[in-house]
Amino acid sequence: MAPRITLSTDFGTRDSYVAQLKGVLYSEGPADLQVVDLSHELAPFDVLSAAWFVREAITRFPPQTLHLVVVDPGVGSARRPIVARVADQVLVGPDNGVFGALYDGGESVLEIEPARLGGRALSSTFHGRDLFAPAAARLARGEPCEGFARVITDYARLALPEPRAERDVLVGQVMHVDHYGNLVTNLSAGAVRALGHAERLTFQILGQEVAPLRDHYAQVQPGELIALVGSSDRVEISVREGSAAERLRARLGTLVRACASAVRESS
Amino acid sequence: MAPRITLSTDFGTRDSYVAQLKGVLYSEGPADLQVVDLSHELAPFDVLSAAWFVREAITRFPPQTLHLVVVDPGVGSARRPIVARVADQVLVGPDNGVFGALYDGGESVLEIEPARLGGRALSSTFHGRDLFAPAAARLARGEPCEGFARVITDYARLALPEPRAERDVLVGQVMHVDHYGNLVTNLSAGAVRALGHAERLTFQILGQEVAPLRDHYAQVQPGELIALVGSSDRVEISVREGSAAERLRARLGTLVRACASAVRESS
Amino acid sequence: MAPRITLSTDFGTRDSYVAQLKGVLYSEGPADLQVVDLSHELAPFDVLSAAWFVREAITRFPPQTLHLVVVDPGVGSARRPIVARVADQVLVGPDNGVFGALYDGGESVLEIEPARLGGRALSSTFHGRDLFAPAAARLARGEPCEGFARVITDYARLALPEPRAERDVLVGQVMHVDHYGNLVTNLSAGAVRALGHAERLTFQILGQEVAPLRDHYAQVQPGELIALVGSSDRVEISVREGSAAERLRARLGTLVRACASAVRESS
Repeated sequence: MAPRITLSTDFGTRDSYVAQLKGVLYSEGPADLQVVDLSHELAPFDVLSAAWFVREAITRFPPQTLHLVVVDPGVGSARRPIVARVADQVLVGPDNGVFGALYDGGESVLEIEPARLGGRALSSTFHGRDLFAPAAARLARGEPCEGFARVITDYARLALPEPRAERDVLVGQVMHVDHYGNLVTNLSAGAVRALGHAERLTFQILGQEVAPLRDHYAQVQPGELIALVGSSDRVEISVREGSAAERLRARLGTLVRACASAVRESS
Repeated sequence: MAPRITLSTDFGTRDSYVAQLKGVLYSEGPADLQVVDLSHELAPFDVLSAAWFVREAITRFPPQTLHLVVVDPGVGSARRPIVARVADQVLVGPDNGVFGALYDGGESVLEIEPARLGGRALSSTFHGRDLFAPAAARLARGEPCEGFARVITDYARLALPEPRAERDVLVGQVMHVDHYGNLVTNLSAGAVRALGHAERLTFQILGQEVAPLRDHYAQVQPGELIALVGSSDRVEISVREGSAAERLRARLGTLVRACASAVRESS
Repeated sequence: MAPRITLSTDFGTRDSYVAQLKGVLYSEGPADLQVVDLSHELAPFDVLSAAWFVREAITRFPPQTLHLVVVDPGVGSARRPIVARVADQVLVGPDNGVFGALYDGGESVLEIEPARLGGRALSSTFHGRDLFAPAAARLARGEPCEGFARVITDYARLALPEPRAERDVLVGQVMHVDHYGNLVTNLSAGAVRALGHAERLTFQILGQEVAPLRDHYAQVQPGELIALVGSSDRVEISVREGSAAERLRARLGTLVRACASAVRESS
């Protein structure tokens, strides 16, 4: 398999930061390296959103794929650079929780020791280029990470917000607002189905009721609100061919209540 | 030739959708696969714009290149997933007209039968990941599409708006507003030249007259309106080093009239 | 090494321009070509910003990497297409100064002669596709550029604005506003350190004073202004986990004065 390194950053695409990262990877990685862009539009400085992204994206890749994830508000401070082996993947980035949504107890985490990477100059604002990329390039060349990193156990964990149950109501929240304006919640398909049959489920968000839980967009008209189970197996509130975020003025953290009515008519 | 799959979607680049697609392609495609981003900023849900993009972009690639095109407002409904062989290229996507601007009577179109792709779970909102990518990955591995798809003849056609002739006037419209604010019309270079010599052509748009038909931007000053034949061999209304869309408040569908004046002075 | 061509353009990613470029490169380049996106969001028509980008980005790549740079407001005019060999890299693009920040006297510059590229039709608005990409594809196949280009010496130079000294004050300016809102100046780390010790340096911008020169973001609180040496070894004015451009309403060209106070308390 051609060695690949994927990139997930909050760098944006207007500046030379992505280019500099790729330059280092191609210079220091193996000759047949492929660098694969996943996203450079992660929310700036937002570790929680990045962790959500990592969980959704990374596990789809072939085993032992290398991933560079740089959302790093603490760059230059004491936060540690790490390599995490988890979910059959290898991730390189800052120890700030960005990989935390993948940790399941089976992970192994190593702290990168910059001095063992060859003693290059380290800028105080761009460890992606000066530290994470050189480390990833070495891994892509087949070097073991033990050559420049040591196992640690006190790495940063991350607690993603979980829904809470209030009597017969499950109170979740919007975890992600996507490009289309879909509101991806932390209400799992399994959890809401445990409340009652899809036909009887109602979702309350910002004073609106959306019901029942549908199967696909085509069950409502373009422009109508719909609740359905999205591609990450969680409830999403959407507008067919439109933006639920705009319609409802919802955003990250907006509460979404799920409940089952006893006497709802089938619709 | 290294196997390649190009991606053209309306996914945007903030979410994990592109990453998930790439994960599936690299996991299920051949070891030396290259995935090539064409655009993830196609207008959301807009099949006509996507068809225009496909026509401009796809035919430039080496014969038999694989293209994944996912602009899919009908995802989860009865619209069919297809493989289209046309213009020496192979396209995978929804049967909603997105490939229609390439169809010339020589195309062959096959409906993908999801059950023959291995019986994976199919989300109702992300067939790009669950259906189109697995199909494209198989094609990239060299499997014939007849292994999971059957020829159909009642696939979706698409009628792109054509200019209409009114006496000596040709009435076209803005088909695309590009990144720079150039207004790309459906008036072909051949059609307007049949009206008269470039020096005598006038274009009317939103009450403004732009004349004559020029050869290149440098014939007007920065900031001035200009009509010229663009890179797709169609008339474009532009502002040199500026945005015609902003200047004229023009958009998709804005009418553009072309006529030849009998007594225009050479300019 | 797999042959690679990097792309840096102001094309944006909504249109088919990037796709058309890639189609030509893959069609006319070697079978194992990799095309690498650096940025398609360079400021439209802005040669100076592109030159700044090129200087930061290009030198990180392995020697002899091919780079296509298309920010080309003069497309279709008399500006010449060139190949520049400089800083161990090979660049293809317009002769408008876009490579000028790399020129150090050791460069060799050749004018591409379109007729020797095979006599294809040349649009007047898209030389990236019709001229630069075919030239880059030939170079990627190993053809010498002397086959279609001739050495010139009267190519476009570029003068990047340099800081000027006024008594004990160094007056620089904002050269780049990045994705995060950081203000990257043309004040080099060396030049400001020559004024005095970091602890005693003060930066004045739009009526605000930012002091002293810090080492890393974590030395101030989130939301606070900070001056530090950024990853390009120049002074940057930033807001920790925020946007200095928004906070100060600063932009390209905004003046930044550096001076050393005689009696500043250590902070």
